[in-house]
Amino acid sequence: MYLGQVIGTCVATKKVDGLTGVRLLVVQPMNRKWKPVGNCQVAADAVQAGPGDKVYLVGSNEASKAFENSFIPVDAAIVGHVDSVDLLEEDSK
Amino acid sequence: MYLGQVIGTCVATKKVDGLTGVRLLVVQPMNRKWKPVGNCQVAADAVQAGPGDKVYLVGSNEASKAFENSFIPVDAAIVGHVDSVDLLEEDSK
Amino acid sequence: MYLGQVIGTCVATKKVDGLTGVRLLVVQPMNRKWKPVGNCQVAADAVQAGPGDKVYLVGSNEASKAFENSFIPVDAAIVGHVDSVDLLEEDSK
Amino acid sequence: MYLGQVIGTCVATKKVDGLTGVRLLVVQPMNRKWKPVGNCQVAADAVQAGPGDKVYLVGSNEASKAFENSFIPVDAAIVGHVDSVDLLEEDSK
Amino acid sequence: MYLGQVIGTCVATKKVDGLTGVRLLVVQPMNRKWKPVGNCQVAADAVQAGPGDKVYLVGSNEASKAFENSFIPVDAAIVGHVDSVDLLEEDSK
Repeated sequence: MYLGQVIGTCVATKKVDGLTGVRLLVVQPMNRKWKPVGNCQVAADAVQAGPGDKVYLVGSNEASKAFENSFIPVDAAIVGHVDSVDLLEEDSK
Repeated sequence: MYLGQVIGTCVATKKVDGLTGVRLLVVQPMNRKWKPVGNCQVAADAVQAGPGDKVYLVGSNEASKAFENSFIPVDAAIVGHVDSVDLLEEDSK
Repeated sequence: MYLGQVIGTCVATKKVDGLTGVRLLVVQPMNRKWKPVGNCQVAADAVQAGPGDKVYLVGSNEASKAFENSFIPVDAAIVGHVDSVDLLEEDSK
Repeated sequence: MYLGQVIGTCVATKKVDGLTGVRLLVVQPMNRKWKPVGNCQVAADAVQAGPGDKVYLVGSNEASKAFENSFIPVDAAIVGHVDSVDLLEEDSK
Repeated sequence: MYLGQVIGTCVATKKVDGLTGVRLLVVQPMNRKWKPVGNCQVAADAVQAGPGDKVYLVGSNEASKAFENSFIPVDAAIVGHVDSVDLLEEDSK
């Protein structure tokens, strides 16, 4: 899994049936110091996250397991809110 | 999932049986400011997209779930048209 | 899926049982302008491709779906010959 | 699989049901000389690892196989403690 | 699949039950000219490979298919010994 921050929403009215009712958020992956790393992603939201929230995500075909109907085509899902990341002293510098 | 723009089509008459009738488009992955990022991909189209369309895609083995016959060898599928991407103010700069 | 060109063959007499009879080719991934991008891969051939052929490949665990016996350990398969890639004018420059 | 070192913990009280009771650690991937490489990851712990421990991890949807209930949405799991990595002489320089 | 060379072994006495009896080797991915590319990996050995051997590997959840008990958490497996890689003349330069 990886850390990320919700930076926006993706509006998509025309999509495959399997994604009906799935909320899509734009997420920026973050590193341990909470700096952006890599490209943004479109992730399905399983924990009522919103823009600005710090979250962690699961990728690959594990993402669909976060939803009741696991036969949906998603490869990135927001599965938790991050309260805090506690690092070893030498790694938090 | 990730954002992308359809930039062309891929003509392939000789292919494995499982891909018969599957429409293949060439897609350029995009970042949140809709600038190209990374290499193009060949994606199976599940939402009647065409060259120039802004779309989002799903990868890995979730891609085949976008099709009625999910036992097809595709690892990238166009699953929705992007109407708009709404970003937090500080992220849209 | 991604574009590639067959650049050679991989001779491997000692391998796991599941790969008996599977033809292994060395493939260079290509971008939309048909320039090499990234590292070569060893791919299982499902469409009688040969050195020099322009092809497209499928990765991850979708690759094995290209074969009759899908319980084989392959994560890259050549699934089609590319006749042509037709790009939008501004993208073909 | 890849080598890594546990550098901290991730506190997340609000998460999907499937992750209840799963311990989440922050892990830095390492190279063969045990230098950091790439971005940190959030991994589920299957071997009672703790901050500072040298471990190896499994990714993709193999990660969930490390747990009794394999229907959980995790794509990175700590599956072993590394006692030592023994390299060929020319590779350990 | 990708080319690699076994560069060492990984000693790990404390690991998840599913990995009992699985031999773990450290492998350096190689390019077509057999030069190192990218970071080392820890791979499960399915073909009695040893340090120095030239091999090819399979990744993702295809890796576990190389073993009799396919319900093991491995995402990289050595599935064959490379006798030779025969490249087109222009690609072998």
